[in-house]
Amino acid sequence: MTTTLITNIGSLVTNDETRGDGPLGLIEAAAVVLDGEEIAWTGPAATAPAADTAHDAGGRAAIPGFVDSHSHLVFAGDRTREFNARMSGRSYTAGGIRTTVAATRAASDEELSANVARYLAEALRQGTTTFETKSGYGLTVEDEARALRIAREHTDEVTFLGAHIVSPDYAEDPAAYVALVTGEMLDACAPYARWVDVFCEKGAFDGDQARAILTAGRAKGLTPRVHANQLSYGPGVQLAVELDAASADHCTHLTDSDVDALAQGDTVATLLPGAEFSTRAEWPDARRLLDAGATVALSSDCNPGSSFTSSLPFCIALAVRDMGMTPDEAIRAATAGGARALRRDDVGRIVPGARADLVLLDAPSHVHLAYRPGVPLVTDVWQRGARVVGGGPAV
Amino acid sequence: MTTTLITNIGSLVTNDETRGDGPLGLIEAAAVVLDGEEIAWTGPAATAPAADTAHDAGGRAAIPGFVDSHSHLVFAGDRTREFNARMSGRSYTAGGIRTTVAATRAASDEELSANVARYLAEALRQGTTTFETKSGYGLTVEDEARALRIAREHTDEVTFLGAHIVSPDYAEDPAAYVALVTGEMLDACAPYARWVDVFCEKGAFDGDQARAILTAGRAKGLTPRVHANQLSYGPGVQLAVELDAASADHCTHLTDSDVDALAQGDTVATLLPGAEFSTRAEWPDARRLLDAGATVALSSDCNPGSSFTSSLPFCIALAVRDMGMTPDEAIRAATAGGARALRRDDVGRIVPGARADLVLLDAPSHVHLAYRPGVPLVTDVWQRGARVVGGGPAV
Ligand SMILES: [Zn+2]
Ligand SMILES: [Zn+2]
Repeated sequence: MTTTLITNIGSLVTNDETRGDGPLGLIEAAAVVLDGEEIAWTGPAATAPAADTAHDAGGRAAIPGFVDSHSHLVFAGDRTREFNARMSGRSYTAGGIRTTVAATRAASDEELSANVARYLAEALRQGTTTFETKSGYGLTVEDEARALRIAREHTDEVTFLGAHIVSPDYAEDPAAYVALVTGEMLDACAPYARWVDVFCEKGAFDGDQARAILTAGRAKGLTPRVHANQLSYGPGVQLAVELDAASADHCTHLTDSDVDALAQGDTVATLLPGAEFSTRAEWPDARRLLDAGATVALSSDCNPGSSFTSSLPFCIALAVRDMGMTPDEAIRAATAGGARALRRDDVGRIVPGARADLVLLDAPSHVHLAYRPGVPLVTDVWQRGARVVGGGPAV
Repeated sequence: MTTTLITNIGSLVTNDETRGDGPLGLIEAAAVVLDGEEIAWTGPAATAPAADTAHDAGGRAAIPGFVDSHSHLVFAGDRTREFNARMSGRSYTAGGIRTTVAATRAASDEELSANVARYLAEALRQGTTTFETKSGYGLTVEDEARALRIAREHTDEVTFLGAHIVSPDYAEDPAAYVALVTGEMLDACAPYARWVDVFCEKGAFDGDQARAILTAGRAKGLTPRVHANQLSYGPGVQLAVELDAASADHCTHLTDSDVDALAQGDTVATLLPGAEFSTRAEWPDARRLLDAGATVALSSDCNPGSSFTSSLPFCIALAVRDMGMTPDEAIRAATAGGARALRRDDVGRIVPGARADLVLLDAPSHVHLAYRPGVPLVTDVWQRGARVVGGGPAV
């Protein structure tokens, strides 16, 4: 196995409090040694062991690769006009998500796969090395299974979201759609997925329907995660905790009981500020969750309808400005937090034995991800030990 | 002179209503011919003339290079800790702008020049092809003149801002500082600058002081621009219009009379959403200005204290979400609007005779600059006919 020394790191976020300062486990003037696909060593550059090859980070800050635990990338079609009309105050007979469902069903496997690949590559250039993605624009047995099979070609973190909305084909009989999702559709989809998800919201699926869907998924070996409490108060968050879901996502409208449940349980609160930004909605209150002791993740929610960003740095900047997170908390949420939301401990940290997923920034400190909003600071990315992005400008 | 054909442009923003659709002068399936440093031809790709070399835009959208008419790049020092403390709710004995003044005075010419070059290159990678920058962190005759001399090595759009704050050396005698700025300092600085600027605000310079400074600058051949009405209501905007300043910058707190003055006069309202984002301040109301008939520009205000972004795409996304601009208006403001704020008609438009400054986006439409916030969409940049950024991923 080839070892690589990355040295002259101005400031290294390890997310390991036992190895460095503060909750980010910060090490100044640091080095990291990669051994094949894993981290082999971290510490002060002055004490670094030798390696087969060396890379000079030029004083740049290094952070773990971002873990984006929530996206919707298996889609086709274009909703630019709908966005433009909404942001221009013009009326638009919007098909909304139905536009995307129709285009996705009509697309070839190759188109869908190319689309996923394109957005994964875009995210990788912005430092995201672990990516979850979902079905949910097929809404038939075949189209949902196809979406997951295609997603699975690109990432291990695949979520069955047949319960994204009630399929338009079942508008008159939602119960029959729930029966399909928990029956034939689940049977076809479970082999490709690790997770089962449901959009628990007024107009989508209520608490009883969500419970039925998540429970059925769990019986097939899938672990629950829930789109919960995005647009209004509701049962999603408490259901997620009750079923020990890995994550309750959005968490924009929370009662004190919801916050308590998240603080007590093992369910991560995954906040998706790109959605609030793009829909001009109220921000989730990250401060309240953190102060209560909940684990918070930040993810992109990348999708063409309500959050067409793949940028975790952008989400970090929003979380710091508008959601009460400190820069340190936001960066931890977008790395170790995302990993917790995927129940992973091999990513989101730069510690011996973890995956060699590491990002260099054109900045002396990780704080610049919030301090320099909108500026593409990622210059180099290692993923499983391979340098997949590189050659940026010197600091 | 070598001619270059850029063809297969999915959608071209010309900012020329006589050549294309709507206020952006949009041409679908377009081509552009560059001749040396100038645009020679624009129109439908199907009717494009031959050229010496050709570049296939692959269906990407093209826009004029951004014109950033407001930045503060001649500085040294690091204020990361101050930003981090402010955003983390920790108290911090902030030196604020004085920290930057002390570090800038202490820096070598080479350090300052390298810093300007670095941020100009960063902006260029994000599509900014015309860049204004200011002095204002020297605040002595020698340090202000040095800042402008260095800025002038990098751009023609150089602004004398000796009146950024009252120099700490004159804290007890502001009138003496105004006398210095309008006398010896102006004499030393005028040869390097095109513009004279003043921070007209409570705690900085009042209306009478601002008038004295701008009038003195004008007598030396500099055209006024004004930091006006950022933190509070005040005389800045109306003074700017009265003196026919090219631009009144910030415009966050405006009375109806201020809006009327901007609508009647030839002074552009330059909005700087990066500052409101980074200081968690109230947004300027672009809608009100546009509806009144004022010309609006969007710029970065890039500086280490209150807006450390160089990203016009980020400013566009904020302007659309929070300032009432449509995507079209925001993109026009960041291109043709910036050009008006610099009283230029050779930039900010893609028309025959204009400078060959052109940006390709990894997107089918310019609308994606707002639709895909935070995502680095710029793949290729031509500046004065030279391809200075290129080789991005295919659409
Ligand atoms: Zn979602
Ligand atoms: Zn300024």
